[in-house]
Amino acid sequence: MALTPEQQAEIEAARAEPRPTLRAVAPGMEAQLHIAHPILDHGLIRVVDYMGDDGAICQAARVSYGRGTKAVSDDRGLIRYLMRHWHSTPFEMCEVKFHVKLPIFVARQWIRHRTANVNEYSARYSVLDREFYIPAPEQLAAQSRTNNQGRGQLLEGAEAQRVLDILREDATRAYDHYEDMLTPDPEAGKQGLARELARMNLPANVYTQWYWKVDLHNLFHFLRLRADHHAQYEIRIYAEKMAEIVKDWVPLAYEAFADYRLGAASLSAQARAVLKRRLAGETVTEETSGMSKGEWREFVEEWG
Amino acid sequence: MALTPEQQAEIEAARAEPRPTLRAVAPGMEAQLHIAHPILDHGLIRVVDYMGDDGAICQAARVSYGRGTKAVSDDRGLIRYLMRHWHSTPFEMCEVKFHVKLPIFVARQWIRHRTANVNEYSARYSVLDREFYIPAPEQLAAQSRTNNQGRGQLLEGAEAQRVLDILREDATRAYDHYEDMLTPDPEAGKQGLARELARMNLPANVYTQWYWKVDLHNLFHFLRLRADHHAQYEIRIYAEKMAEIVKDWVPLAYEAFADYRLGAASLSAQARAVLKRRLAGETVTEETSGMSKGEWREFVEEWG
Amino acid sequence: MALTPEQQAEIEAARAEPRPTLRAVAPGMEAQLHIAHPILDHGLIRVVDYMGDDGAICQAARVSYGRGTKAVSDDRGLIRYLMRHWHSTPFEMCEVKFHVKLPIFVARQWIRHRTANVNEYSARYSVLDREFYIPAPEQLAAQSRTNNQGRGQLLEGAEAQRVLDILREDATRAYDHYEDMLTPDPEAGKQGLARELARMNLPANVYTQWYWKVDLHNLFHFLRLRADHHAQYEIRIYAEKMAEIVKDWVPLAYEAFADYRLGAASLSAQARAVLKRRLAGETVTEETSGMSKGEWREFVEEWG
Amino acid sequence: MALTPEQQAEIEAARAEPRPTLRAVAPGMEAQLHIAHPILDHGLIRVVDYMGDDGAICQAARVSYGRGTKAVSDDRGLIRYLMRHWHSTPFEMCEVKFHVKLPIFVARQWIRHRTANVNEYSARYSVLDREFYIPAPEQLAAQSRTNNQGRGQLLEGAEAQRVLDILREDATRAYDHYEDMLTPDPEAGKQGLARELARMNLPANVYTQWYWKVDLHNLFHFLRLRADHHAQYEIRIYAEKMAEIVKDWVPLAYEAFADYRLGAASLSAQARAVLKRRLAGETVTEETSGMSKGEWREFVEEWG
Repeated sequence: MALTPEQQAEIEAARAEPRPTLRAVAPGMEAQLHIAHPILDHGLIRVVDYMGDDGAICQAARVSYGRGTKAVSDDRGLIRYLMRHWHSTPFEMCEVKFHVKLPIFVARQWIRHRTANVNEYSARYSVLDREFYIPAPEQLAAQSRTNNQGRGQLLEGAEAQRVLDILREDATRAYDHYEDMLTPDPEAGKQGLARELARMNLPANVYTQWYWKVDLHNLFHFLRLRADHHAQYEIRIYAEKMAEIVKDWVPLAYEAFADYRLGAASLSAQARAVLKRRLAGETVTEETSGMSKGEWREFVEEWG
Repeated sequence: MALTPEQQAEIEAARAEPRPTLRAVAPGMEAQLHIAHPILDHGLIRVVDYMGDDGAICQAARVSYGRGTKAVSDDRGLIRYLMRHWHSTPFEMCEVKFHVKLPIFVARQWIRHRTANVNEYSARYSVLDREFYIPAPEQLAAQSRTNNQGRGQLLEGAEAQRVLDILREDATRAYDHYEDMLTPDPEAGKQGLARELARMNLPANVYTQWYWKVDLHNLFHFLRLRADHHAQYEIRIYAEKMAEIVKDWVPLAYEAFADYRLGAASLSAQARAVLKRRLAGETVTEETSGMSKGEWREFVEEWG
Repeated sequence: MALTPEQQAEIEAARAEPRPTLRAVAPGMEAQLHIAHPILDHGLIRVVDYMGDDGAICQAARVSYGRGTKAVSDDRGLIRYLMRHWHSTPFEMCEVKFHVKLPIFVARQWIRHRTANVNEYSARYSVLDREFYIPAPEQLAAQSRTNNQGRGQLLEGAEAQRVLDILREDATRAYDHYEDMLTPDPEAGKQGLARELARMNLPANVYTQWYWKVDLHNLFHFLRLRADHHAQYEIRIYAEKMAEIVKDWVPLAYEAFADYRLGAASLSAQARAVLKRRLAGETVTEETSGMSKGEWREFVEEWG
Repeated sequence: MALTPEQQAEIEAARAEPRPTLRAVAPGMEAQLHIAHPILDHGLIRVVDYMGDDGAICQAARVSYGRGTKAVSDDRGLIRYLMRHWHSTPFEMCEVKFHVKLPIFVARQWIRHRTANVNEYSARYSVLDREFYIPAPEQLAAQSRTNNQGRGQLLEGAEAQRVLDILREDATRAYDHYEDMLTPDPEAGKQGLARELARMNLPANVYTQWYWKVDLHNLFHFLRLRADHHAQYEIRIYAEKMAEIVKDWVPLAYEAFADYRLGAASLSAQARAVLKRRLAGETVTEETSGMSKGEWREFVEEWG
């Protein structure tokens, strides 16, 4: 991503003038504000605004539990307790707004998370820029043979080159035609196609952008699904950057999230029973586990 | 849209065997169930399931108002009262599930309505069909000169032909390349690109499909925005068919919706005051209206 | 409401130390932050945090409309345009968090607005305070004879006195018993009832408190319903104070809301047609209006 | 709960006339429809309507995964896969509507689940019935000394009797006064207090009722929190009955829910590491576990 000089100037202007506020301020997030992090070849993510900090989570929890929270007096312990016991509402008290530039096929996955506020660039009103996502060679992978939704080995040599050429040429031609259809030329008797129609010629790797605002609880839910290794690389790379930003913003909440969600494991009733039998010294096999073949395979991947 | 013989057989099978139920049954909706209505060139919409009827709206309202509803004893009057006074919760007691096949650029507008449940065909797991939306000649319009988000005159002659050729050829080529990139060919040293990557080459007029489930209140909200003449034709045509279906399903609620939303007008405080002055015989001009130029223009369009 | 000295000290501490931020700052809202506004006899409302300002609404709208918004260059015009055309998403880009102390029967109405984040004081964890809402004499009204959900004339004399005595005495007794049931007394063989059970003895006018966080679009929706004269006085008085606060926070958005929602009128298809006939000089009667009796009565109340 | 003869007759009428439908029918749910299950002393829960069955979950999943689902061909395996991998959207394709009668303090917990549709009996419009929840002796427990939100030993003897007397007498007196304040008596110069005011005298154990409609995914979320042993008995008893009903409705989905949610265990990153060390033969202590005191205590409760 190359910011235009105009955009760069806007960011610098926004960062140049701190103003006094009586609100909670998160120093780690102030350091992030407005700065554009490049993602993929033309994408970006940056924090535009935020509300709350670790203290705001505790403040809300203490309203709920009133005098009953005296026992858990330190913030870190309280936040870990809330996360461990799925008390999600205090995390909803923090809010963040991102500006994101991303390919349309990524935007289509992202928007499935419904509990967020979105303003997207409208290709009915305006003309999209000539920017497409072309994967880097180290992301150009074959279909996985074992995983219906995953990637296998990298493409190499002529195949890789051919794929990159196709993606580049088709996107370029599509955009040339998009521009051509849009452009009126009275002398040639051309009125110019409506923008809301012309856009249909553009491929799913064209970049769009939006403002995306979400509370911390729902952001954690997004990150759990999208910063996961099962997620498609092209959305995961955004999620990973957001995770870093969240760590700067609410370090205690992020640590609890990492321990109780990202790094956690979920055991089915059967898996739980098998582990207890193993801890008691028993050897459990697929046959005696009560699990199906697929369940056992996933269990053994984790627990040996 | 041409249904495959397999799909047609499924629909006939689903309609062949009525089964007894103790639930509320809406006869007009039973007549609609499963039947595929063609929309655009390859799209469709059909009702897959539904819950509730006009009676269910009244039943819920009567729980809320208890003995207090005796005064409004007939269903039609009660439903109109609820609609008129924005009592939306009784309308949420009805639910409907559609199967929709639609171009991706339409799906991207549609999904912005967040209060619905969606399962979309996944191009990570599966290969999309070779089907694209190509506008009919009577939809091939130029950009409006007065409305940033609208269409103007129809394109004609050479320009129209050229646009249609571009859309068809670019879509065909993009799909040929999509298929080619996907297809492994061990002899030629081709592994085949991952589906989640190959899809990025497809244009926004390729068709996708989904199950979309929504309650009646939120469906009315969707219809108010999308069956409106400001909506883009390619989504409005779906909304209009849905409106017809809803009319068969809950005729009393639909009539109230038509009178109090679709056919209704909203007056700003200024417009309200101007109308009262006019009714009292005064001649009001833009200057004395308290409205801005744009507000006055929109007011005059409606009220002369 | 009397704040405890401890609470007063907290508020003063929170207001004493402005800190620098790079976020959007709304001066009118900074002046409001943390300050407790007394509502009813023991209630309060105060702003605990906020995100965004009028500029944030425009910033988001300009992302959506891209270059297409050049035409509407000033913020006031753009915000009015958005409000007039029900473009709600830019208003969702602002967020506010309130601390509210309110009687339980008010809280039960309030919580029906689902698109907000809430942390309420928990009477499972903690003991509720001895504070009850007792209406002021000028709010002690009889049941309306014409409106099932409204108030009529004020109660007077002996009846008023008797009602106030009942409310005070029953609340006092209920709280005395609550405390008594809760209190262990080992010498008397009393263990003390669980808090989660004892609370069931408290009446609906006991005060609770919560943090309530909502975006501006949904707050406007709340205010439209609850600052309306049909709303019960005991919730309307909170809504009216919130409306004043919002006016300080986002003056342009509030003005548009006042003009296009609060002060606006909605015309059914029938009412619209009748007004047009009247403007054309026709005299329209109930019989020729196409309206039901109730619809006509409501129409005449507004339009004579 | 005693149904009135009128209510009983309505239920019998609703069950008397099966009608033909072309929708999915769940036989186990048809057997449940309309039947009122008594809960607590005057409460009830009953299914009023439903949409979908186990097959509807699979149908939606197969739309999402298209041809990619051929591998998982049987419904049970597919549903377990969806549940195991948190693919929640197919479960949202089923919907259920309950009629519930419940004490207000239970309703206040219940309503915190926001993703549902609700129509509650309105005490502004109508007069509440003279029905209060009085705990059975085996539920009359002392405050737990170790758990801020739990119950300890049962109350006995004089204390138990005294508590029951207080609850009964205060509720009776409050209701007598409610009725008295409401009742106009022109001869005595009494107008009768507005219903919206009089209700504030009623305690939190008075019964209310509502229609509550929710999709299966969100119902499972509700059941996970409210059928849990940490939940207060008075809401858990409703959740347990709902769980039985769901088991009759969608037996495959319920089985997966029981195995992967209700009976499952969640391991933090630390707990996961400790279990692996134990399985490898190491003895791990609190000191070497990386856990806090509270975390270790909860871990040992489960894993010894």
